[in-house]
Amino acid sequence: MKLDHIAIVVRDLEQAASVYSKKLGVPLKSRHRIDAEGVEVAVMELDNAHIELVKPLDKASGVASFLEKRGEGLHHICLEVDNIEALIRYLGASGIKLIDDKPRTGYKGNKAVFVHPSSTNGVLIEFYEKDM
Amino acid sequence: MKLDHIAIVVRDLEQAASVYSKKLGVPLKSRHRIDAEGVEVAVMELDNAHIELVKPLDKASGVASFLEKRGEGLHHICLEVDNIEALIRYLGASGIKLIDDKPRTGYKGNKAVFVHPSSTNGVLIEFYEKDM
Repeated sequence: MKLDHIAIVVRDLEQAASVYSKKLGVPLKSRHRIDAEGVEVAVMELDNAHIELVKPLDKASGVASFLEKRGEGLHHICLEVDNIEALIRYLGASGIKLIDDKPRTGYKGNKAVFVHPSSTNGVLIEFYEKDM
Repeated sequence: MKLDHIAIVVRDLEQAASVYSKKLGVPLKSRHRIDAEGVEVAVMELDNAHIELVKPLDKASGVASFLEKRGEGLHHICLEVDNIEALIRYLGASGIKLIDDKPRTGYKGNKAVFVHPSSTNGVLIEFYEKDM
């Protein structure tokens, strides 16, 4: 199993992307607005994974609520799997609680599910079906 | 720049290592007790990085204080660099605040420094000098 990305919630995407690229040396790869999730994302490129800086677009998203309660910081990790339906069956049999009843579709068209942090020691984990 | 690991603070190392290995399918690679840091660690192996499950051994460590304040969850990320002294000069020139005045030595003998989350949008980042 492979790590796809680490997501960090931020208040100001310009400022955060500038810190990570110019001050830490992690290059900016791309930027996306994902209206379905109510977020804007800056993808920062590490050699073996990505850091996604995520800014809420409104107050309705889960990310906005996280930002209000906990402030900026680490939000979730995303692991890549071959087959999301097989994974959902495996997690169900393991007694792992999912946030999603069925896979959601990411901005690149890939299927993804989120695991509830209560099942995984306080960590929000996204599983993401890799490109075919 | 490469991600080395993601650290997750947990209360019970046996329980957490069992969740990540048996229920999520991320194999346990090794376990270490690091007395200098006051922690016990289970290293879980992803294809391209590690997850470190970290349990405080006493109430004095930073990890114990994190656990008390915020509960279990994502604690820090660790990025691998070629030369820690060059990195410290680069971060200093960038105005990034370090927690450590000088590099600490990890359990494998590698040098590491931690960046203060106030400089990096609430994220505790460890920089780790890779094996020679």
